[in-house]
Amino acid sequence: MNEFLQAALEEAKKGYEEGGIPIGSVLVHQGKIIGRGHNKRVQDGSAILHGEMDALENAGRQPASVYRECTIYTTLSPCSMCSGTILLYGIPAVVVGENKSFMGEEELLRARGVNVTVEDNQECYDLMQRFIREKPQVWNEDIGV
Amino acid sequence: MNEFLQAALEEAKKGYEEGGIPIGSVLVHQGKIIGRGHNKRVQDGSAILHGEMDALENAGRQPASVYRECTIYTTLSPCSMCSGTILLYGIPAVVVGENKSFMGEEELLRARGVNVTVEDNQECYDLMQRFIREKPQVWNEDIGV
Repeated sequence: MNEFLQAALEEAKKGYEEGGIPIGSVLVHQGKIIGRGHNKRVQDGSAILHGEMDALENAGRQPASVYRECTIYTTLSPCSMCSGTILLYGIPAVVVGENKSFMGEEELLRARGVNVTVEDNQECYDLMQRFIREKPQVWNEDIGV
Repeated sequence: MNEFLQAALEEAKKGYEEGGIPIGSVLVHQGKIIGRGHNKRVQDGSAILHGEMDALENAGRQPASVYRECTIYTTLSPCSMCSGTILLYGIPAVVVGENKSFMGEEELLRARGVNVTVEDNQECYDLMQRFIREKPQVWNEDIGV
């Protein structure tokens, strides 16, 4: 597995161990992780800290010039909130662990010129499926269903 | 002015007084404010706490059934991040103070069935313009420019 997707998966596992929704993400600038995070709905009672949002928040304030040289890695296809954030900051590339558990706004991202790669990673999928089986209501809450 | 847009504007003014970007928002459920907030980029060093995001975060975890009966009020047209979040949670209505300082994703929201009303409020506009004149770089950072 790509080392950065691996790092995102480690974040997802950390989230799972905390009792949270196991989705992780890292923001990579010129080959270096500048922000990492995982979904904090359960842990922080947060409505906005999806994995990608947490990684972006942990990267801190960055100028547009940095975001434009970044790739964001996420274990699960980015929802409309996270995709909108990717568009806001002009992040040009997204690497997605899997999109079988949830299909995010990949089409919108591509239509706006973002390079979206889906890895179809089994470990990301298995972890997500395990959580959805165990806590379907928390999962539904997270995607507004 | 509508009482809820007034409450969003008060949040924006609070942000300005704190030295921050003066954009405020309130989330209204069945005639009652359940979350209020303002942009916290400067105050918290946050990359994700736009006014709308802060209001949603302060409303806490809510089930989809609540969001579907909400209206979100914001002093400025919602960017792609905030619009994506509105779509994620299925918030059916957005009231915008003004969109002359910044045109957000109103078209995308409407295309997805969200009711978007623009109030073209002079006070919202004047406060925003004042900030953009005073701190153009902070403003550009906030919209990824």
